[in-house]
Amino acid sequence: MNWISNLDFASEGDLVEVISQRQKKFIFRLEIGNELHTHRGILKHEDLIGKLWGARISSHSGNLFFLLQPSISDLIESTRRNTQIMYPKDIGFILLQMNILPGSRIIEAGTGSGSLTQVLAAVVGQSGHVYSYDTRMEMQNLAKKNLSRLNLLDRVSFINKNIGEGFDQEDINAIFLDLPNPYDFLIQVRKSLRGGGYFGTLLPTTNQIIKTLIAMRRNGLEYIETCEILLRYYQSEATKFRPVDRMVAHTGYLMFARLIESGTVEKEDNDEKKTTKTEKTDTASEN
Amino acid sequence: MNWISNLDFASEGDLVEVISQRQKKFIFRLEIGNELHTHRGILKHEDLIGKLWGARISSHSGNLFFLLQPSISDLIESTRRNTQIMYPKDIGFILLQMNILPGSRIIEAGTGSGSLTQVLAAVVGQSGHVYSYDTRMEMQNLAKKNLSRLNLLDRVSFINKNIGEGFDQEDINAIFLDLPNPYDFLIQVRKSLRGGGYFGTLLPTTNQIIKTLIAMRRNGLEYIETCEILLRYYQSEATKFRPVDRMVAHTGYLMFARLIESGTVEKEDNDEKKTTKTEKTDTASEN
Amino acid sequence: MNWISNLDFASEGDLVEVISQRQKKFIFRLEIGNELHTHRGILKHEDLIGKLWGARISSHSGNLFFLLQPSISDLIESTRRNTQIMYPKDIGFILLQMNILPGSRIIEAGTGSGSLTQVLAAVVGQSGHVYSYDTRMEMQNLAKKNLSRLNLLDRVSFINKNIGEGFDQEDINAIFLDLPNPYDFLIQVRKSLRGGGYFGTLLPTTNQIIKTLIAMRRNGLEYIETCEILLRYYQSEATKFRPVDRMVAHTGYLMFARLIESGTVEKEDNDEKKTTKTEKTDTASEN
Amino acid sequence: MNWISNLDFASEGDLVEVISQRQKKFIFRLEIGNELHTHRGILKHEDLIGKLWGARISSHSGNLFFLLQPSISDLIESTRRNTQIMYPKDIGFILLQMNILPGSRIIEAGTGSGSLTQVLAAVVGQSGHVYSYDTRMEMQNLAKKNLSRLNLLDRVSFINKNIGEGFDQEDINAIFLDLPNPYDFLIQVRKSLRGGGYFGTLLPTTNQIIKTLIAMRRNGLEYIETCEILLRYYQSEATKFRPVDRMVAHTGYLMFARLIESGTVEKEDNDEKKTTKTEKTDTASEN
Repeated sequence: MNWISNLDFASEGDLVEVISQRQKKFIFRLEIGNELHTHRGILKHEDLIGKLWGARISSHSGNLFFLLQPSISDLIESTRRNTQIMYPKDIGFILLQMNILPGSRIIEAGTGSGSLTQVLAAVVGQSGHVYSYDTRMEMQNLAKKNLSRLNLLDRVSFINKNIGEGFDQEDINAIFLDLPNPYDFLIQVRKSLRGGGYFGTLLPTTNQIIKTLIAMRRNGLEYIETCEILLRYYQSEATKFRPVDRMVAHTGYLMFARLIESGTVEKEDNDEKKTTKTEKTDTASEN
Repeated sequence: MNWISNLDFASEGDLVEVISQRQKKFIFRLEIGNELHTHRGILKHEDLIGKLWGARISSHSGNLFFLLQPSISDLIESTRRNTQIMYPKDIGFILLQMNILPGSRIIEAGTGSGSLTQVLAAVVGQSGHVYSYDTRMEMQNLAKKNLSRLNLLDRVSFINKNIGEGFDQEDINAIFLDLPNPYDFLIQVRKSLRGGGYFGTLLPTTNQIIKTLIAMRRNGLEYIETCEILLRYYQSEATKFRPVDRMVAHTGYLMFARLIESGTVEKEDNDEKKTTKTEKTDTASEN
Repeated sequence: MNWISNLDFASEGDLVEVISQRQKKFIFRLEIGNELHTHRGILKHEDLIGKLWGARISSHSGNLFFLLQPSISDLIESTRRNTQIMYPKDIGFILLQMNILPGSRIIEAGTGSGSLTQVLAAVVGQSGHVYSYDTRMEMQNLAKKNLSRLNLLDRVSFINKNIGEGFDQEDINAIFLDLPNPYDFLIQVRKSLRGGGYFGTLLPTTNQIIKTLIAMRRNGLEYIETCEILLRYYQSEATKFRPVDRMVAHTGYLMFARLIESGTVEKEDNDEKKTTKTEKTDTASEN
Repeated sequence: MNWISNLDFASEGDLVEVISQRQKKFIFRLEIGNELHTHRGILKHEDLIGKLWGARISSHSGNLFFLLQPSISDLIESTRRNTQIMYPKDIGFILLQMNILPGSRIIEAGTGSGSLTQVLAAVVGQSGHVYSYDTRMEMQNLAKKNLSRLNLLDRVSFINKNIGEGFDQEDINAIFLDLPNPYDFLIQVRKSLRGGGYFGTLLPTTNQIIKTLIAMRRNGLEYIETCEILLRYYQSEATKFRPVDRMVAHTGYLMFARLIESGTVEKEDNDEKKTTKTEKTDTASEN
């Protein structure tokens, strides 16, 4: 669990989240001598040390805060970034669809600001590993900074290489491409992904999806699923329960596929396939 | 990774997924002497042993199949059930929002068919643990059967007890209630959840949400987020890219909160809070 | 109002809707001597004549029904069809976006089963007119049958012609193309639409949208709006208020544009344009 | 068509819409001697008179504009307001569900800023009428100003009265309540609505819906449909076709019902009713 202390109170060096009553979150590491400066007053780090998680604390100006440990979602949202980051709604589904679990060996490209990298590193555990490719040195440096905040650097190999030249690993469980042109790298994916392995990508435009669909069929990536996830928040008010006024309408289309031995998979004739999937999934009747 | 062999070919005893060209999936354990009977022909288990993952295989009647390892999503969908199961779209988001990671100690109630239990057990790894409560013996037996399929039984304690009497554990990282009346058990949640810990629930009706909101505010469960996740599948056709005709419109509303020291959290005055959250989340400016 | 009697009770010759308690709807014209045969018993037309609208009536077997006048939505849904029909959620928005009102002169192609035709004819009133093109004689005959049910045949000219040869009318207020390839007919649209007039189309796939966008820009159709409308029903249960389980995920993408004098319209630089539109729409500050 | 000249060029006194290349819209009436002042230059009204609809025009500073007639949607969006207005996506569906057509006699309460009033007045034509109730004199004055812009004042009676005392009309085709507490006025609705007539309301919170459902069942308002409409805009870019980043997540839940003779309507047992409605709607089999 790495960045999360297992003690039930805050100690020096812990990564903490201080949250105001207005839900403004501050994530930082506790260091004696340091202070957190907010619009609602100053908090000395040393006053936080020894407090129970969940404790209410006051700034010097008397404003109320609570002391928490950051969640992985909080960390994604607070990732220092200079590109679009991936959202928890999409990442959570990717984990399950691509079977990313303790022990998995994963490739991602590009690294970007490392928002996905952080979650992958947290989930694969000490027995798994993440290989993260990007040609942009400055992105990888930023991602390293974000990963080191979680003490998860040892689970990630950052590789500064154009993936057109191929990935350095083989027999990988899952490869995720967060790039504008995944369709250009599917031969490389095929080479490094183990048989039956998982391929995934996230693309903002339908034009990119259309190109990728064509390229996937040519490279043995089949059982393709294309989808999008919409997350809608509600006002948490018991007397006025209703959706909030505005929402994120689009982050990207998700695509998933599995690598199979070359061979044509028959066209689906049933548009409703996806929505009735559970009914069609049977445990085998054996004898 | 437990149920997943790390070899790149199928061996006796492996849990495998055989998938037809029409995307019908069969999940079973390879046993010499057994056969898989499908509408598209018979496959002998012994003919599958030794094949590479992703291999194309033929039934005795010449129909094409592929040999894969099941993903956790495939396993959820194929869970033997006698209740409504939870869906990957919701489970993935729960993992991230409730910070469920290798090493976490989690309580869930009720067990149900064990669809969530399977994912929790897979994600917490060997260093974590899941405590699963249900009063219905037959549900827990079914869940045990589903868990044993994944060789993950040792990570789950099934507890046959009315949670109104309290949970047997303390200092738990996260508690998820998949019950119609979570609002009746928040005192018990408060007692067993560690400070700053994560609470979550999934409820189908707005009436239940309204009752739970009231009960949460009374029990120190704050920083409440209520939301829903919509998953929309697309036809994966390059020349006719479009959403499928029908979709699941509702599985349930998700609620998340964190346990804090008792103290009133100010009402939010901004309906758009959720959608602008990332902008409001800052790393601290320190000096 | 045509098909709707202004009397508050049913008379011979009226178009009526008889609705069962299970919401099964029967739409027919009252004729002495006729009977309605349902799974829940027989109703004699003459027993309905003279009843107040909204009256409860019983079949010979004692089942309860109510006597209503059909709404335009009910009529669309009950349209005899041999193609995909358009849905009220889309039609309602089309009316407002294309300014279809009493007095409007409208072209539509193709006629299809006439579901849109019926609404257009109802809305343009006696002072407006609808010109409906289709090359398939059998479709127009079906649409005529559907229109005659509403006594609205005199407001529609059915024209059996390939629109590639051009429309016979000019100075038309709005043209709606319900065809797979609207991009092939925009020169014809331009010729028959009045300056500033409204163009609209509904297309199921993104591939068609992409082709149409290119063709529109070339033909002076600008101020383009592309959107989709999702309609989600809820269970109308006070103690279990929640969305229904499943919904229509897609009928089609809607496109709207206005005909302007040829001239390049600057590219929008603001992705959020649409959602902030009302703020940008000002009544002029004049002096 | 009232506010829309039937000529194909602009004349003095016409209501016009001048739209910039950045889609900023200015709606005003042409008056010789007046000028339109914009951030992109000045346009003299007299320079617009005689121009064809759709014409490109230049401001004194050389910026490009186009001359159009406003659509009813444009007019709604530009309504001078001091309350939340109703949106075209909801209004369009209301028209069809409540069978609002030329000749209809409609009650609405409250008047608000008159955004719905404008559309109702436009659609009912010269043979229909709208009765609009509000207790707030200043709202009705604002609505009158908005209606007079369209020359539709003669189709609307503004009534300054508390509807708790009842409506002054009877035998009304449809009643729409845009009020926070429609459940308090259903006895009054019942009295003024004709048998089989249409009731509708729009409510932001689920708490209001729940109260209204209870009240409807008690007042003979049955065949209730509760729904919401989501409108999602796309970027109209042929090479980057994708949804815009953000959208309106909620305007309100819509409810529709029909007035029937008192009598219990059986509970629906099928959650999917709404989504399969078209299949269940049959034209009668008669003999």
